[in-house]
Amino acid sequence: MTDSQPYGSLAGIRVIDLTRVISGPFCTQILGDHGADVIKVESPGKGDVVRGQGNMINGESWYFAQFNRNKRSLTLNLRSDEGREILHRLLAEADVLVENFRPGVLARMGLDDDTLRERYPQLVVGRINGFGSTGPYRDRPAYDFIAQAMSGFMGVNGPADGEPMRAAPPISDMVASQNLAFGICAALVRRERTGQGDIVETALTNGLIAMLGYLAAEFFATDRLPARTGNDHPMLYPYGLFKASDGEVAIAPSNDTMVERFLGALDRLDLLDDARFADNARRMANRDALREILNGIIETRRVDDWIEHLNRAGVPCGRVHDLRETFADPQVRAHEMRLELEQASGKIPVTGFPVKLREAPATLCHPVPRLGEHTRQLLGELGLAERELDDLAARGVI
Amino acid sequence: MTDSQPYGSLAGIRVIDLTRVISGPFCTQILGDHGADVIKVESPGKGDVVRGQGNMINGESWYFAQFNRNKRSLTLNLRSDEGREILHRLLAEADVLVENFRPGVLARMGLDDDTLRERYPQLVVGRINGFGSTGPYRDRPAYDFIAQAMSGFMGVNGPADGEPMRAAPPISDMVASQNLAFGICAALVRRERTGQGDIVETALTNGLIAMLGYLAAEFFATDRLPARTGNDHPMLYPYGLFKASDGEVAIAPSNDTMVERFLGALDRLDLLDDARFADNARRMANRDALREILNGIIETRRVDDWIEHLNRAGVPCGRVHDLRETFADPQVRAHEMRLELEQASGKIPVTGFPVKLREAPATLCHPVPRLGEHTRQLLGELGLAERELDDLAARGVI
Repeated sequence: MTDSQPYGSLAGIRVIDLTRVISGPFCTQILGDHGADVIKVESPGKGDVVRGQGNMINGESWYFAQFNRNKRSLTLNLRSDEGREILHRLLAEADVLVENFRPGVLARMGLDDDTLRERYPQLVVGRINGFGSTGPYRDRPAYDFIAQAMSGFMGVNGPADGEPMRAAPPISDMVASQNLAFGICAALVRRERTGQGDIVETALTNGLIAMLGYLAAEFFATDRLPARTGNDHPMLYPYGLFKASDGEVAIAPSNDTMVERFLGALDRLDLLDDARFADNARRMANRDALREILNGIIETRRVDDWIEHLNRAGVPCGRVHDLRETFADPQVRAHEMRLELEQASGKIPVTGFPVKLREAPATLCHPVPRLGEHTRQLLGELGLAERELDDLAARGVI
Repeated sequence: MTDSQPYGSLAGIRVIDLTRVISGPFCTQILGDHGADVIKVESPGKGDVVRGQGNMINGESWYFAQFNRNKRSLTLNLRSDEGREILHRLLAEADVLVENFRPGVLARMGLDDDTLRERYPQLVVGRINGFGSTGPYRDRPAYDFIAQAMSGFMGVNGPADGEPMRAAPPISDMVASQNLAFGICAALVRRERTGQGDIVETALTNGLIAMLGYLAAEFFATDRLPARTGNDHPMLYPYGLFKASDGEVAIAPSNDTMVERFLGALDRLDLLDDARFADNARRMANRDALREILNGIIETRRVDDWIEHLNRAGVPCGRVHDLRETFADPQVRAHEMRLELEQASGKIPVTGFPVKLREAPATLCHPVPRLGEHTRQLLGELGLAERELDDLAARGVI
C-alpha cells in the first residue's frame, strides 16, 4: 500500500496543509484518502504537537496516525522570510491551501485573503476556526468542549434528570473537518469550470448548529426548549435501550407497524389491547409501566438471541457495542472500517474510509510521514539544489 | 430570496433526488444550498413522509422545512412504467442521482448499478444506507439509534456511573449526509476532468466509526476500552462544567499554561503549590478535591461574569447554551446561523449554512416546495405537452 499511484477522485489536486491538532488534519486526511497530494507543512524540529501525544509505540503516536495518513511531511519555518518565500513557491503550483491558525495569524505572515486571491487566483483556501474569522467572538480561544456547549448541542444531550452531556469524541472538530472537505471540493468543482479559486471557511460552533436538525425545527415552531430525554425518544415508545440477560440491546421501532412486529416477536401483541398501551400517546403516558413489562421479557434471553429474533421479525435493533465489539463486527470488517498502515515501525491500525466510490475509491497511498520526511524530495522538485537545502537546514529554515 | 439565480459553487449541477426522511434530504439540501438544481422526486399524493411530521404551522411542517429548502418538487410514481420512463429522461440530462432506499429497491425498479453506469456514464450516483449495500447486515433495517449503538459511538458517551448515552440529534444520519455530499463533490471534480461518473456510497454506521478519532487510536494502542467519563476530560483536569451562581459554565484549559492562566484568573495560583495539585497527573488523582475548591470559587459569580473574566485571561470557556440562547447569541447571529425561509404560508426559521465561501457563497434560492409544485414546469422542459401532463395526472403517474 505504500507510495502506490493514487487513483482517488482527487488525484492531481495538490493541497498545502498548514494545519495541526485535529480539525484541520482530519480534513486534509479526507482529501488525501481520496487521492489528493497533501503536503503537511510543519515547524522544523517540532512539527504537529500531536506527534508527541497519546500512546507512543516504537516512537510513533497512534493518535497522530489516526489523522495523518496519506500525507507527505515538509518542514518549513514560516516565521523566517526564506521559509515564507518557499511557501509562496509551493502555493504557485498548488490547488488548495488549508489552515487552522487563530484568525489573523496567516495575515501576519503576509498571507491575508486579498493577497492570496490576487497572487493565486486559482487557489482554493480552506480554513477552520472555533468561532469563525468574523463576528464578536472571532478572537476567543475555542476548543471542542466549548463549541459543544455554546452550539446548543451539549444542552440537548444527556439524561432527563442529569446535566447537559458532551459527546466524548471531539465531534465539533470532526464535523467541521467534514464540512470543510465538502466546501473545498465544491469550490474545486466551480474552479474546474471557471478557473477561479475561492476562500472557504467553517467554524466548530456552526457545524454543530447545522446538525441540530429537527430539535431546532421544533424549538422554532413551538418556542419551547426540547427536554433532555437520555436514551428515550422524545415522541415514541417503546424505543431505546432494554436490558437483556447479558447486556443492553437497542431496539428502535419507529412507527406503529414496527411496534406491532416488536410486540408480536415478544408474543405480547395483547399489550395493544391494554388501554394503557393502545396507541403511542398512551404508551408515552405510561412509559414506565410498559418499560417494566418489556424489560421483564427481554431480561430472559441474551442480547444475541434478541438481535437474531428481532431482525428476523424486521424490527430495527442492535447491540450497544464497545470498541472491541465494533471493530470485531463482521459488517465493520466487511467494510474495512479498521485498516492497517504499514509503517517502518510496524503496523498501525486506524479507522477506515466511510465514503466508498466504485470507480475511484479511497486508498492508502502513503503511511504516516516522519517529520520532514519529504522535505528534500519536494524542495528538490521546486529546483532547490542539495547545497541550498543543506544551507537551509543548517539555518533552521527547513 | 425566492427563485433568484443560484451562484453557489455547484451552480449548473442538476441533482435528481429520490431520498426521503433525514439522511438523504439533508445531503441534497447541502448540494442545493451551494447552487445545485435539486429536483426532489416524490410519490404523487403522498410525498416525503416528513411533510406530515413534527409541528405543522399554516399547513407546513417546520421539521420538513429544516431539510428541504433549495429544492424543487416533482411528483412521479416510480412503480409505474411511465413514471420510470420519465425518470430515465430526467437522468439523461442530470449530473447526480441520490437515493436512500433499502438496498436492492432501486435495482428492482430496473436501475441496478451496472445499468446506471452503462446508460448514464456521466452520472454520479450517491447512496446512503444504514449498514451499506454490501456485507452480512445489508438487509437489516437501521435507524440512527441503532447506528449510534453499533458503531461504538454510544458506548463511549455518557456519565462514568451511568449507561451508554446517545446524542439526541440523529447524528449518524447527519454525518452520513455530510460524507455523501463530500463524496459526490469529489466524484464531480473527477468527472470534470475525465467525463466519468461514479457510484458513491456511505453508511450510517461507517460515518460514526470514522469519527471515533483518538478514542479508536487509544483503544488500538492499548487494547483497553475507553472509560466513559461524562463531561470530564479523560486525561486533563481542571476541564469540564463548573457551577456558577446562575448556571453552568464550560471551562477547557487544555495545557499547563492555560491551567496557570485559569487559576491566576481565580487568584488561586497558590493551588499549584499544593502537593495534591502540582501537576496534571496529581490533579487527576485528586480531581474531586480540586473540583470542590474550584466550584466554591466559581459559584460566587454569574456565568456571564466568568465568561468575560476568563476570556480576558485567554482561558477557553463558554456558557452551556440552550437553543434559545444559541440562536440569540451575537456570534451565531453574525454568522446568520438562523435563516428565514419566505414561504407563501409565512416565514419559517431554519438553521443556516455552516460552510461559508467568499466568491460563491451558499444562498437561499428556493423556499420549501409544495408537493409537486414544479412537476409541470420540469416536465414541460422535457417537452411534455399540457394534454399529456393532464393525462398523466389523471392516471396518477405524476
